Amino acid sequence: MAISNIRYGEGVTKEIGMDLQNLGARRICLMTDKNLSKLPPVNAVLNSLAKYGINFQIYDNVRVEPTDQSFLDAIQFAKKGEFDAYVAVGGGSVIDTCKAANLYAASPSSEFLDYVNAPIGKGKPVTVPLKPLIAVPTTSGTGSETTGVAIFDFKELKVKTGIASRAIKPTLGIIDPLHTLSMPERIVANSGFDVLCHALESYTALPYNKRSPCPSNPINRPAYQGSNPISDVWALHALRIVAKYLKRAIRNPEDREARANMHLASAFAGIGFGNAGVHLCHGMSYPISGLVKTYKPKDYNVDHSLVPHGLSVVLTSPAVFAFTAQIHPERHLEAAEILGADIRTARIKDAGLILADTLRKFLFDLNVDDGLAAIGYSKADIPALVKGTLPQERVTKLSPRPQTEEDLSALFEASMKLY
Amino acid sequence: MAISNIRYGEGVTKEIGMDLQNLGARRICLMTDKNLSKLPPVNAVLNSLAKYGINFQIYDNVRVEPTDQSFLDAIQFAKKGEFDAYVAVGGGSVIDTCKAANLYAASPSSEFLDYVNAPIGKGKPVTVPLKPLIAVPTTSGTGSETTGVAIFDFKELKVKTGIASRAIKPTLGIIDPLHTLSMPERIVANSGFDVLCHALESYTALPYNKRSPCPSNPINRPAYQGSNPISDVWALHALRIVAKYLKRAIRNPEDREARANMHLASAFAGIGFGNAGVHLCHGMSYPISGLVKTYKPKDYNVDHSLVPHGLSVVLTSPAVFAFTAQIHPERHLEAAEILGADIRTARIKDAGLILADTLRKFLFDLNVDDGLAAIGYSKADIPALVKGTLPQERVTKLSPRPQTEEDLSALFEASMKLY
Ligand SMILES: NC(=O)c1ccc[n+]([C@@H]2O[C@H](COP(=O)([O-])OP(=O)(O)OC[C@H]3O[C@@H](n4cnc5c(N)ncnc54)[C@H](O)[C@@H]3O)[C@@H](O)[C@H]2O)c1
Ligand SMILES: NC(=O)c1ccc[n+]([C@@H]2O[C@H](COP(=O)([O-])OP(=O)(O)OC[C@H]3O[C@@H](n4cnc5c(N)ncnc54)[C@H](O)[C@@H]3O)[C@@H](O)[C@H]2O)c1
Ligand SMILES: [Fe+2]
Ligand SMILES: [Fe+2]
Repeated sequence: MAISNIRYGEGVTKEIGMDLQNLGARRICLMTDKNLSKLPPVNAVLNSLAKYGINFQIYDNVRVEPTDQSFLDAIQFAKKGEFDAYVAVGGGSVIDTCKAANLYAASPSSEFLDYVNAPIGKGKPVTVPLKPLIAVPTTSGTGSETTGVAIFDFKELKVKTGIASRAIKPTLGIIDPLHTLSMPERIVANSGFDVLCHALESYTALPYNKRSPCPSNPINRPAYQGSNPISDVWALHALRIVAKYLKRAIRNPEDREARANMHLASAFAGIGFGNAGVHLCHGMSYPISGLVKTYKPKDYNVDHSLVPHGLSVVLTSPAVFAFTAQIHPERHLEAAEILGADIRTARIKDAGLILADTLRKFLFDLNVDDGLAAIGYSKADIPALVKGTLPQERVTKLSPRPQTEEDLSALFEASMKLY
Repeated sequence: MAISNIRYGEGVTKEIGMDLQNLGARRICLMTDKNLSKLPPVNAVLNSLAKYGINFQIYDNVRVEPTDQSFLDAIQFAKKGEFDAYVAVGGGSVIDTCKAANLYAASPSSEFLDYVNAPIGKGKPVTVPLKPLIAVPTTSGTGSETTGVAIFDFKELKVKTGIASRAIKPTLGIIDPLHTLSMPERIVANSGFDVLCHALESYTALPYNKRSPCPSNPINRPAYQGSNPISDVWALHALRIVAKYLKRAIRNPEDREARANMHLASAFAGIGFGNAGVHLCHGMSYPISGLVKTYKPKDYNVDHSLVPHGLSVVLTSPAVFAFTAQIHPERHLEAAEILGADIRTARIKDAGLILADTLRKFLFDLNVDDGLAAIGYSKADIPALVKGTLPQERVTKLSPRPQTEEDLSALFEASMKLY
């Protein structure tokens, strides 16, 4: 497994101008979203670019929860600009958009579907050389600064999908906890739930040596390899941080220790799931986001309805882990214990229920919407949600327990109401 | 921080022929030592090379605990061979020799001292492109498959030093636990002590944000950055594995679980110390090895006297951590607890003594020689040992507590006898 370059520390963003000089870059594309363009993280980057006399153009048209259309708009900008390096300042939406822009600008003769994950796209391997991309995350969630993944909402098909290739992994991730201080409560919470699910799913994913078929040539193996002793270290460590700090980070924007730790946990979990993969919470989340009706989450400064990614993954987590625990009950129990469950008298066969209860209590304490029903779905939507999950085979096949359409249906139904 | 590519699994060595094909390599240099050339790890590599029709030359003249002369011999071989990739199968001695051969063959106009660490050498940055190097560790110790370090004994000066540059980090490390099964007891023990010290030293090293001077341009920062939240994860995890598995791995060559875990721990600790650094045990070990008199360790199939690296670092560890604990007592106490100490009623100011006692007991249980006296040193050697430590500033400056010559003297004296 390969792990990205990261630099950690309060204020390390001020070095970015020097990094770009060291890369010999002369025409920089700085990507962000409209909301962030007025906030301190973008400011810190601009100051450093000015100090080192770096020539740049800003693209701040990134859509929160990007779509094929919004990716294409950014790609268009990148193609025109003929940039020799990219800087992405934002959450997963910005970093993912920037990865796609870098990829397609470097491969001008490719069709958009060429690199999109099969079976929706063609899933072609990337063979063109990309420009350096420095990612400066401002949420503590996706870990996109460490992964070779870019996710978007395919509007036509009403389903989220993405591009997955080691080639689009950022050259450097700058983990500067100062950027987390401007996050409002619900953005801390939802992006934190993403970290929680990355850690839980990669820790419980199908083990790397049980995956089949496993291409005999290492070069053909997917980025998502299944859980393994190395990704386990990252997943467990991230989970411990989430257990200790997520509540504090949400409740108190001044709690720098908690926010800094969550910012690191996001990268740690990213390294873990970027090598091991995620499974059902993520696979099922894509239609939950893609089919959104009118839900407008608190604290998101955007003009369209959306289900934030972290919320879309965590709402099914109690049902999912109750379902998967059959396979590695001891890992499920261990996760429950890390999240605060008293397991001294627990029976191993109850591992799934115990983890599910622990998660429900955790979400209740954090004022999370009461299940899929609370964000606008009803029983009548289940067939469409299941249909949207089926093409997510790239991740769902990493579930330790195989699932039928009936199983998926039951998981969505069990996630309608949590408390 | 950057982390190497590693692949883990029983039997994954059989893929190495394919890896070399994927790299487009046509002339391979296979390095090992005379002892290993007849053992299963080298055999497994040869089988894979044959299967994929890979053209190679073998160099098995690596010296166990390499010297400048032995490095130069390997470099000569590499220059003549005009190889386009390297495979190193062995312990740190082999992997380090191969790194040096790759470096100087790629930089034919360089003098040997050019890349050797200052102040002994010139410590020039590496700017030439190197050929791919695949490292297949057969000991569970150095973690050299993950680091940008190559250590040798500078015979003339009677002191160990090395080359340190991210450029010499292997392209891929193949962590195949099958290779550990042929290790005799003392090689498991001594290389395991190296893992123990990598973990303890990097966890207690000067924190990254206390290092001074810290070059303002990131490109000029040394590979050893001081302890940081990321290297801490690796160090603690490696320490936990050592605590759980090292004794078992030593006692029973059939204990595959223990040996496999130690093989991973070696790489984990390597990633940790490769980014954070080591400090006094390592700095003081170089003269302990370099000034060796007649000591011939059990189980080492070599014709010259040597102090195995792992033994040379661990013998001073009780004295060193009793000395450094003043600075981060809580980390020292935590390490002692992981290694089995009961700290429920411990006072924080006793952290150093507690860790030192825990280490002494650990070493006693494992039949380790009773201190420097047992391997041939006496009080009269202390001035020479101190003098040999002074040029090791690159590592000793990472000690959390600064040390005078008197301090070093006292540390060597306290390490003469352990039990
Ligand atoms: N690439 C990957 O590996 C990966 C993994 C998981 C999720 N994702 C994708 O990432 C996207 C979600 O990203 P996200 O959760 O980071 O959120 P986001 O990028 O969608 O941002 C959410 C909102 O938070 C605001 N915001 C971000 N940082 C802020 C700050 N410091 N202060 C104030 N406001 C701030 C943004 O302006 C935006 O309005 C989804 O599209 C999801 O599918 C990608
Ligand atoms: N590069 C780094 O980051 C780094 C770190 C620590 C130490 N080192 C250096 O590495 C060297 C020590 O390396 P080491 O401890 O791995 O040992 P080693 O390479 O010196 O080997 C020791 C002995 O073990 C034998 N051996 C190795 N694997 C075997 C196996 N599987 N079965 C049977 N015999 C086996 C060897 O033939 C040799 O006789 C020292 O020079 C030390 O300074 C380097
Ligand atoms: Fe996610
Ligand atoms: Fe070492």
